[in-house]
Amino acid sequence: MIKVGIIGSTGYAGQELVRLLQPRKDVEIVWFGSHSYVGQKYSDIYGNMFKIVEADCLDDNLDELADQVDVIFTATPQGYLAGVISEEILSKTKVIDISADFRLKDVNVYEEWYKIEHKAPQLIDEAIYGLCEINREAIRGGKPVGNGEVSDVRLIANPGCYTTTSILSLYPLVKQGMIDPTTIIVDAKSGTSGAGRGAKVPNLYCEVNESIKPYAVATHRHTPEIEEQLGYARFALVNGNDRTNSAVSDEFAENNNPGGDPITINFTPHLVPMNRGILSTCYATLLPGFTAEDVAEAFKTEYGNEYFIRLLGEGRFPETRWVEGSNFVDIGFTVDKRTNRVIVVGALDNVVKGAAGQAVQNMNLLFGLEETEGLTMPPLFP
Amino acid sequence: MIKVGIIGSTGYAGQELVRLLQPRKDVEIVWFGSHSYVGQKYSDIYGNMFKIVEADCLDDNLDELADQVDVIFTATPQGYLAGVISEEILSKTKVIDISADFRLKDVNVYEEWYKIEHKAPQLIDEAIYGLCEINREAIRGGKPVGNGEVSDVRLIANPGCYTTTSILSLYPLVKQGMIDPTTIIVDAKSGTSGAGRGAKVPNLYCEVNESIKPYAVATHRHTPEIEEQLGYARFALVNGNDRTNSAVSDEFAENNNPGGDPITINFTPHLVPMNRGILSTCYATLLPGFTAEDVAEAFKTEYGNEYFIRLLGEGRFPETRWVEGSNFVDIGFTVDKRTNRVIVVGALDNVVKGAAGQAVQNMNLLFGLEETEGLTMPPLFP
Amino acid sequence: MIKVGIIGSTGYAGQELVRLLQPRKDVEIVWFGSHSYVGQKYSDIYGNMFKIVEADCLDDNLDELADQVDVIFTATPQGYLAGVISEEILSKTKVIDISADFRLKDVNVYEEWYKIEHKAPQLIDEAIYGLCEINREAIRGGKPVGNGEVSDVRLIANPGCYTTTSILSLYPLVKQGMIDPTTIIVDAKSGTSGAGRGAKVPNLYCEVNESIKPYAVATHRHTPEIEEQLGYARFALVNGNDRTNSAVSDEFAENNNPGGDPITINFTPHLVPMNRGILSTCYATLLPGFTAEDVAEAFKTEYGNEYFIRLLGEGRFPETRWVEGSNFVDIGFTVDKRTNRVIVVGALDNVVKGAAGQAVQNMNLLFGLEETEGLTMPPLFP
Amino acid sequence: MIKVGIIGSTGYAGQELVRLLQPRKDVEIVWFGSHSYVGQKYSDIYGNMFKIVEADCLDDNLDELADQVDVIFTATPQGYLAGVISEEILSKTKVIDISADFRLKDVNVYEEWYKIEHKAPQLIDEAIYGLCEINREAIRGGKPVGNGEVSDVRLIANPGCYTTTSILSLYPLVKQGMIDPTTIIVDAKSGTSGAGRGAKVPNLYCEVNESIKPYAVATHRHTPEIEEQLGYARFALVNGNDRTNSAVSDEFAENNNPGGDPITINFTPHLVPMNRGILSTCYATLLPGFTAEDVAEAFKTEYGNEYFIRLLGEGRFPETRWVEGSNFVDIGFTVDKRTNRVIVVGALDNVVKGAAGQAVQNMNLLFGLEETEGLTMPPLFP
Repeated sequence: MIKVGIIGSTGYAGQELVRLLQPRKDVEIVWFGSHSYVGQKYSDIYGNMFKIVEADCLDDNLDELADQVDVIFTATPQGYLAGVISEEILSKTKVIDISADFRLKDVNVYEEWYKIEHKAPQLIDEAIYGLCEINREAIRGGKPVGNGEVSDVRLIANPGCYTTTSILSLYPLVKQGMIDPTTIIVDAKSGTSGAGRGAKVPNLYCEVNESIKPYAVATHRHTPEIEEQLGYARFALVNGNDRTNSAVSDEFAENNNPGGDPITINFTPHLVPMNRGILSTCYATLLPGFTAEDVAEAFKTEYGNEYFIRLLGEGRFPETRWVEGSNFVDIGFTVDKRTNRVIVVGALDNVVKGAAGQAVQNMNLLFGLEETEGLTMPPLFP
Repeated sequence: MIKVGIIGSTGYAGQELVRLLQPRKDVEIVWFGSHSYVGQKYSDIYGNMFKIVEADCLDDNLDELADQVDVIFTATPQGYLAGVISEEILSKTKVIDISADFRLKDVNVYEEWYKIEHKAPQLIDEAIYGLCEINREAIRGGKPVGNGEVSDVRLIANPGCYTTTSILSLYPLVKQGMIDPTTIIVDAKSGTSGAGRGAKVPNLYCEVNESIKPYAVATHRHTPEIEEQLGYARFALVNGNDRTNSAVSDEFAENNNPGGDPITINFTPHLVPMNRGILSTCYATLLPGFTAEDVAEAFKTEYGNEYFIRLLGEGRFPETRWVEGSNFVDIGFTVDKRTNRVIVVGALDNVVKGAAGQAVQNMNLLFGLEETEGLTMPPLFP
Repeated sequence: MIKVGIIGSTGYAGQELVRLLQPRKDVEIVWFGSHSYVGQKYSDIYGNMFKIVEADCLDDNLDELADQVDVIFTATPQGYLAGVISEEILSKTKVIDISADFRLKDVNVYEEWYKIEHKAPQLIDEAIYGLCEINREAIRGGKPVGNGEVSDVRLIANPGCYTTTSILSLYPLVKQGMIDPTTIIVDAKSGTSGAGRGAKVPNLYCEVNESIKPYAVATHRHTPEIEEQLGYARFALVNGNDRTNSAVSDEFAENNNPGGDPITINFTPHLVPMNRGILSTCYATLLPGFTAEDVAEAFKTEYGNEYFIRLLGEGRFPETRWVEGSNFVDIGFTVDKRTNRVIVVGALDNVVKGAAGQAVQNMNLLFGLEETEGLTMPPLFP
Repeated sequence: MIKVGIIGSTGYAGQELVRLLQPRKDVEIVWFGSHSYVGQKYSDIYGNMFKIVEADCLDDNLDELADQVDVIFTATPQGYLAGVISEEILSKTKVIDISADFRLKDVNVYEEWYKIEHKAPQLIDEAIYGLCEINREAIRGGKPVGNGEVSDVRLIANPGCYTTTSILSLYPLVKQGMIDPTTIIVDAKSGTSGAGRGAKVPNLYCEVNESIKPYAVATHRHTPEIEEQLGYARFALVNGNDRTNSAVSDEFAENNNPGGDPITINFTPHLVPMNRGILSTCYATLLPGFTAEDVAEAFKTEYGNEYFIRLLGEGRFPETRWVEGSNFVDIGFTVDKRTNRVIVVGALDNVVKGAAGQAVQNMNLLFGLEETEGLTMPPLFP
């Protein structure tokens, strides 16, 4: 039985962790942490959990929590975890952080884009970027997947929702050198749950409904995360080896150049009137000599065995309705011969594969379980 | 391993059966029946099933299907099943009918409200009305629940979505004689999946979105179904015994008065711009001497042990978002002392407890499995 | 040129006043009052008004405003206007109050349902209940409609959104004695703009979307307003005369029984995931001898000449999409012979006829303009 | 009084023409043409027009219609108008075509993208591309705007919804040579009314709701229309003169190279769960030496005096909610110094400025009226 604590369990991502973990027989949630609802019944905050979760919300005392659980999920505002985490906590329990605190290896880049001081830079190196399909081996600490052994990794930086969609859509083409990395544009669209459960006028029903808008154009915080990870893939390619993103990342860190050699892209997020779902439409110029068949092959090579990545192939595109409630990422593409660009479109459920589902996938990997445990429900439609 | 065939698997209810049954290790779907998509890949019709269901759609040949499966689910238009069902089919396999063909015991009432001739009236008596919380014993054919023995019942009339919500909301108060049955009004609201997947202008996105409308006012076909079932409960009360609805139904049938002694109500359905969910707001005059405490007690008496019915108590009301994707029915109520009326509000997911989920619950009961098997997922929110 | 000030211009109803009044050549808005956005550009709060309204938001100083304008609209929280209004203000300018402060004639009823002390009870008698179709004569102070003469009426209590829909749907049948007033039930459904623009978690997009819920069951504040107005109609009927609601109201007030003789009803509001629109489904028992033809006739008698009331007749029902953006009220009905109940359904746009549009209609009446001036735009669909 | 006939008045664009033209005192709609609803009351098809439009739907006989009206609007499927139009019709009346039949100057390009034979290629040259802000002078046939004189132009090709948004967003930067035309990418998002009122499964409420999808990626028919118009602007720039798009177009035609010198772009449309609205997010590489200030200046130069184009400036972006129901186009932009790209975002209401509103604007221009006549209503929000 894996004992779990959730800090930030009353946000949308935290609640999704509850939805995914509560039914499991091998997991027990012992701590429903909350900043705003301490002492209230959890099911008064989320009526779907009525008669399912009987617990009250507890506070967000990580020190106390660390004594009681095998793993802590933090679905907290940026900067929170870095402010409270400690070597002592990590010596007692694992932490899977759904916030952005440990995703970027270069603390300067973090502070520049997030406009806050990083309070635990000494732990950034240790954190593994938990994009399972790409860094699986590192997450397992080199141990075989699903063999029951617990990984030595203590701190997982669970990727962002936009970033998971965007990186997975572009990674094979960067990794295999098929696109010009200076031409990458990601035009992304997200459901409103990505904006969180805070009471703000722009997120009111009447403000979001019947409208689409771009926001944080050219300034969104997920940009450097995409750039860094694609940069690792590019570096491995250019340097003629087959290192994983995690290995490249370590190498840069050892050379005192953490997060080094990123690719510069344009990333434009949009808010869409729907609850869940992210769609990333990615554009890049195909390098000379490559064809649609090559692109299809690249995706198969990188993802052919991935359970959670569904390759739609050429000329068929994902729709967010087909992944809702699931941990799947659907990817399709086309090559426009008129402009010589490849257009890759990826879609996922931002609350599942973009947050809680991927966090559970990371937990499964850390604890040597089947990677798909508790995550095989088909998408809910309509 | 229970072998399952689904006729009408490409409608919304049929697809939900696939969603609920596909992940189960004790069930195998061997026949994805369809009227319109024979020969096409099922996952081309429902993209959420991509890489999950590999099968092609088959036709709707019940005779052939009956040889291959333990149970057939029919999610078909009204009149279809009655036109093709036979003693031979029922001798080989069980049938759980999600259409309305065998819900009403009085064939004249059926033909009057549905405006079609009933082609298999000889089987109406045999069919058990599959509202599990009320007719559980009859569905089991008297055998204990969950003991692994297969019930002798061959034909289940799975209740309608509006009717499940409405009957469950009112049954305890009728059964225990707390309300004046001549004063019952049910004002119901449904998500749009209830209208099916047919290509009709009134169901287009732009026609449904940003609007609410009543329809079939005073003429909706679910009306007599509610009236019949509440009538049974009333009859048992008035006649001073504790017979179940099913037993009363049998008694009427034996006396050549099938469906007898219904209660007459007003039922008004409305179409709401959302995918899933039904909310029934029920009004009735409380009989002298009864209080809110009595009402609460009546619900506890009838449903206190029911897993799928969540009693919210007095002054707390259900919302469809809290049941989405689940088999739960949430019920709350208040007593208005100014008017002496009790207002009971019930909510469920029309595609789950209102169709496919309840059908699976019936299957579980028929085959002696745990009643909740495969149906314990928490509701999906947001 | 009518000079107008709007207090609460940054709420949804206030903004709708701007939308309706800004294009008019006979009206000038000289004061965009706001509580929260003083000093900010109005078009920064409402981007639709960019390049249309150049003004900044001013504060809510009614005393200063009264010197500058011919009429003040108050779209403010309950209790606000009663707290600041004065004889001096009314001596200088007219006030059309979109809040509830002067709608109920009995101050005790107001304080009981609104849970606040009424700070200006001395002005309640003077206020005219601005349901134009019923109290037109009183609003005009006896002067002919549209003759250019300004009415002497100084204070209009603009009716609520639920109440306008519900009263207009039932008034002819009460007025003409066709229904049993003790059997009235109003089941109402509203779009989310009715909840206002306040930043509250329950009104967030993800909380409202894909759900329907009842709220304030048996306790909603619009209940006594409906009861009072229907009571006046009933009183006039019972007492064998043909007095208007306003005249009956005055008579009660003179007899020290303000708001007297209300009808007691059940009123249940529901929140629907759409921006605009209210639908009231009203139930009542038809008195012996009356038929559907009589009901149709009653509606024609009372509303046959009303521009803004569109009678759909028997068996045809309104949908909120058909009134969006307009000042129309659509009304249809049926008589259920099985239960002897009449079901009347009314629909309107809560922001227009339910708030700002009716306020403008009142303004037109007060100033002797054509009643429909600036309000004849067809509904916007889709 | 301008007499108007509408062919295709029962589609969404046709109905919007009715909404815009019916209230006008200088316009009379004498023909409500329809393919599917001949003989039915128009207000039975569109309930919003109940008591507003009393007419029945007529057929689509253009020859007969031409005798009766001053202008015919055709909101018809592609290829229809080209199949029935004739010199005789144009000798009697003007035609404003909302379909695509006369938008592309090169008949081969038309036939390639639309996959149909063009039945009236001899009229393509004569048609004026009715993007008013760019071709105003040509639409007026050289006469002053608003002087009451009727233009000699007989046939207007009203631009598409995606194209209007996209061309207007990019035109100033192409025209003034600030961007590299080979780098243009337009990622567009549309509300569902753009898909029309045809009864198709993919447009059902439950299929569109809660999802976003790309479609017609790299193959959408609006692509060559954008390319042709931007090509004209580019040609004028490169050739060192200041010709309008229309003049360049004529010049190409005279040189037997109709539609010549287009710019090649990527255009990706997406379907968004909302009724109305288009948002185009446009990317291009800024040429060396140009800054955000230059970009702002270019927009002011081209559009500074345009009533319907609202320039939001740098760092402020449009949202479709702010233009709903209006004829406005809102445009904002930013320059990303990291990538040296300019990102321009344009938004409009696809049914108004993207179809019926622009058609009315063209009508106003043709007949020498004020260009904004009947089109100055503020956007409807929420």
